[in-house]
Amino acid sequence: MRMVVSHPPRLVGVLGGMGPAATADFYGKLVEETPAGDDQSHVPVVIWADPRVPDRSLSLLGQGEDPTPQLRHGIEALKRAGCEVLAVPCNTAHAFVPRLADEAGLELVSIVEVTADALAAAGVTAAGLLATTGTLHSDLYGDALRKREIDPIEPTPDQQDQVSAAIAAVKAGALTPAHRAALADVAGSLLDRGAEQVIAACTEIVLALDGDRVIDPARLLARKVAAISLG
Amino acid sequence: MRMVVSHPPRLVGVLGGMGPAATADFYGKLVEETPAGDDQSHVPVVIWADPRVPDRSLSLLGQGEDPTPQLRHGIEALKRAGCEVLAVPCNTAHAFVPRLADEAGLELVSIVEVTADALAAAGVTAAGLLATTGTLHSDLYGDALRKREIDPIEPTPDQQDQVSAAIAAVKAGALTPAHRAALADVAGSLLDRGAEQVIAACTEIVLALDGDRVIDPARLLARKVAAISLG
Repeated sequence: MRMVVSHPPRLVGVLGGMGPAATADFYGKLVEETPAGDDQSHVPVVIWADPRVPDRSLSLLGQGEDPTPQLRHGIEALKRAGCEVLAVPCNTAHAFVPRLADEAGLELVSIVEVTADALAAAGVTAAGLLATTGTLHSDLYGDALRKREIDPIEPTPDQQDQVSAAIAAVKAGALTPAHRAALADVAGSLLDRGAEQVIAACTEIVLALDGDRVIDPARLLARKVAAISLG
Repeated sequence: MRMVVSHPPRLVGVLGGMGPAATADFYGKLVEETPAGDDQSHVPVVIWADPRVPDRSLSLLGQGEDPTPQLRHGIEALKRAGCEVLAVPCNTAHAFVPRLADEAGLELVSIVEVTADALAAAGVTAAGLLATTGTLHSDLYGDALRKREIDPIEPTPDQQDQVSAAIAAVKAGALTPAHRAALADVAGSLLDRGAEQVIAACTEIVLALDGDRVIDPARLLARKVAAISLG
């Protein structure tokens, strides 16, 4: 099971805390996706998880404080700690982080690009999007999918309200079976409208929805990060 | 559910990676044990998870490299990142870290002391110990328990071999039902010998054993850390 490593592993910075439960989930997936036979063969990681970053989605909708200064602060701390590679287990934050990673000289492994690449490799031509309203508004996934000739299919405004409520419930530790059922209904509706797969494009949604045709970008990111660090 | 915070939360450094799965588990527990209604109310954390720290247990048994330089490096990185409080979700590492935390001027929340305090508060007078051979050899828990007039009860050498095998299996991602059954048998034997509770005193054991009379030091540490950071 030990991976053959031809060079020292690269130190990975994880800009987390958005939210905290999603960050814990991501790190667990990174461990699972690493083919290591002992502690010492795992990916070396520094996780900056200061959850006091202003709401990314509200900012993108013009309704809240700009999170850029706090995101930059975290990225700079990871750089100072010696990280070379950056992973951010928050889809919405990807509206902000590519420029900040460039500024800091860190190699960003984008959760959006990794996911769009995986769908394209699987031959998917239409994908449903479950995401924060800010992620949809910024067209992060829409743009990445269309560039690969994949049609993005978004929830209706009423359905989006239910998605947002479920995300907030996960962040509040107050998820109920009704939230889970609503998310499953919206996902089903996107499949009915022609989506071949549904992207759980918010790290909180992954904690509240699973299914055969649900894509988990956090797991795809974890797999890619392990390969980049150890490969 | 929002906790009333009278001062900014204190930045918590987590010296992790020993092992990685246990660190992910600890961070998940810290999130669960924090009474927060949104992302922003959670504990701000920096996790240093470089798993290339030499095996703590082997070193304590005089059979391996001293992990002190790598532990010191991680603790100093957490200090430089602005952390004030230190948590280490590895019981065995507590044979090394109190001195290093002192050197760095960080307040260590000791998993050993937190656990011994909780048992004393519950009126326990005898507690079983499931731990690495290094932790038993160093008498970390034995000493803390006896100071509180709690009798430590250790596995027999044959049983300890089974405990060590289960810990290694968790670290290798190769835990089987047989490992789980062996751990449960050893725990049952400690209870038969008079233990009122069994301490799962290795963060890997927690991932392979549960039960009514099993104490999880990682969860006790998480609860204490949340209280110290936010309280």
